[in-house]
Amino acid sequence: MTTAPLSDLQDLRDRTRQFAQARDWEQFHTPKNLAMALSVEVAELAEHFQWLPTGAAAELDDAKRTAIRHELADVLLYLVQLADKLQVDLHAAAVDKMALNALKYPADPVRSDLRK
Amino acid sequence: MTTAPLSDLQDLRDRTRQFAQARDWEQFHTPKNLAMALSVEVAELAEHFQWLPTGAAAELDDAKRTAIRHELADVLLYLVQLADKLQVDLHAAAVDKMALNALKYPADPVRSDLRK
Amino acid sequence: MTTAPLSDLQDLRDRTRQFAQARDWEQFHTPKNLAMALSVEVAELAEHFQWLPTGAAAELDDAKRTAIRHELADVLLYLVQLADKLQVDLHAAAVDKMALNALKYPADPVRSDLRK
Amino acid sequence: MTTAPLSDLQDLRDRTRQFAQARDWEQFHTPKNLAMALSVEVAELAEHFQWLPTGAAAELDDAKRTAIRHELADVLLYLVQLADKLQVDLHAAAVDKMALNALKYPADPVRSDLRK
Repeated sequence: MTTAPLSDLQDLRDRTRQFAQARDWEQFHTPKNLAMALSVEVAELAEHFQWLPTGAAAELDDAKRTAIRHELADVLLYLVQLADKLQVDLHAAAVDKMALNALKYPADPVRSDLRK
Repeated sequence: MTTAPLSDLQDLRDRTRQFAQARDWEQFHTPKNLAMALSVEVAELAEHFQWLPTGAAAELDDAKRTAIRHELADVLLYLVQLADKLQVDLHAAAVDKMALNALKYPADPVRSDLRK
Repeated sequence: MTTAPLSDLQDLRDRTRQFAQARDWEQFHTPKNLAMALSVEVAELAEHFQWLPTGAAAELDDAKRTAIRHELADVLLYLVQLADKLQVDLHAAAVDKMALNALKYPADPVRSDLRK
Repeated sequence: MTTAPLSDLQDLRDRTRQFAQARDWEQFHTPKNLAMALSVEVAELAEHFQWLPTGAAAELDDAKRTAIRHELADVLLYLVQLADKLQVDLHAAAVDKMALNALKYPADPVRSDLRK
């Protein structure tokens, strides 16, 4: 008998659960606190871009690219933990939201001149 | 011949690429702008929790749970797009970051009383 | 006998105190909650700029300028309330912080080419 | 002839103008960039509260109180600079916004049980 492999988001969910349990951090991980920590991590990510023209590759050196990669990871890790506490399947939620967005912003096959 | 299934995150990367292309939105999607949009979505998520004690399930009604699920999705969708522009594999970055976090905050097998 | 006029910031502190008391909102106004609400208001402000090149006057129409003015106000109002709860004199704190910043980033009388 | 004294917000506006000019930073200070920098500073402030129950005085030691005071100052300083670029009088905007808020959330002279 084989079991279906975990998806990558489920894998991270399991890893973060284990990580928090091993450190007795679950007591701090209310949805409210995780939402706040997520905000802080996103700001640490945004900080790298605040004085740059666009953040395109040519504007970033290696040290900055590494730091940004770590911040992207931190954002995902808190997002996964928050979704876990709220029992939300992130992939399904994202697919559903894209369907709503497609209704709100229909694609124009010819030209999409106006925006948001 | 079979092909390996796309991971959840790669699937969302492909979906968001197609969505932006179909709407001619790529011109707006600089890393800087996506980081800023990500911050805004995270705040819309956090807003649901700002006056609640902890955000636990009992504090949320169905309408709020649905709204929160949509906001979680929006955060993930912008995160995936930003990582895509920066050519970062989010799952690999998250696994690497957890290894660094494990060095910074070693698990105490007996008790983890002090924190961050 | 004349009394010194209240400063702008003290005036807003007094107005926000009265406003919260009249609505029995003080129970919600912990420093943590006010910091979270402040984050949310700042994101509502930032949202107006996220897809614009620079946010210069020519990029903003009247409706957007009015909305931005209201968001700037909301940010200040939550900041004043948070500082009040923490018994911080915002003007004195800002002057002190500028003195620290001046040490960290000395002005170059000739040219200031490098940055932060 | 006497001139009216500057208000404390006008005083900070003048100080920040001079500070930026002396460092040739005005080129970076677009409204968009200042809004992004403001978001980052607010997150640095919020970070101090993310794992605390309420952020009340008893939960903060002296080092943390000093750090929080500096972050409050940074938030105000970016807010003042952003309002200056947008030619918004922060005090007038705040007073006007409070009048709108009073219409939206009328005070209940007896009891204000429901909320936002």
